[in-house]
Amino acid sequence: MQIRPVGVVVGDPDDEFQVIEVREEYADALLRVEHCEHLLVMFWMSELDPEHVDLLQVHPRGDMSRPLTGIFATHSPMRPNPIGVTRVRLIKRDGLRLTVEGLDAWDGSPVVDIKSG
Amino acid sequence: MQIRPVGVVVGDPDDEFQVIEVREEYADALLRVEHCEHLLVMFWMSELDPEHVDLLQVHPRGDMSRPLTGIFATHSPMRPNPIGVTRVRLIKRDGLRLTVEGLDAWDGSPVVDIKSG
Repeated sequence: MQIRPVGVVVGDPDDEFQVIEVREEYADALLRVEHCEHLLVMFWMSELDPEHVDLLQVHPRGDMSRPLTGIFATHSPMRPNPIGVTRVRLIKRDGLRLTVEGLDAWDGSPVVDIKSG
Repeated sequence: MQIRPVGVVVGDPDDEFQVIEVREEYADALLRVEHCEHLLVMFWMSELDPEHVDLLQVHPRGDMSRPLTGIFATHSPMRPNPIGVTRVRLIKRDGLRLTVEGLDAWDGSPVVDIKSG
């Protein structure tokens, strides 16, 4: 099972908006996307240290007062397959560029999928 | 970007409940999962014909009266990276087996990730 990136995130998580730059070869997959108010965006959390991906238990949110918990019972970004899923608001579409609000992905993160949301 | 399956779906989409069989090597990632009422399950829609994965536009729900729409503006299962995301209810945990309601994945689908949901 191989992931083919369909685009890339541009802009920092602290910015009000971020841009998804969709790859040219997937231009046709954007037809009528501007009618969507919200989108579900899946992105690869590639900034993670590979050794963290093998971590299977965490204290949720790094809070040591919370009990050690398996990552399948958390939203920890450290996971065997580090794919983030976020519902964003679509602000505008400009060709291959989607300006979105609420993505919270690192600059340069590969985009795995976009669905109406 | 390579996906490592963390488990497999057992049971048919028509069944009231389906089971996620988590791989032994990810047993530790299940610690305290029984406290979650709902889970977000990501699974690989491996039953798809590979040629459908290259389809970039569809009539939503196969309804020809609806305009041709890019797959990024739909929930069509035919996508460059055919990963389904479903919020399920956790009925019970029995070791590596999670009985869930509402998954709607084919029997044998590889499970990509499980998050608290």
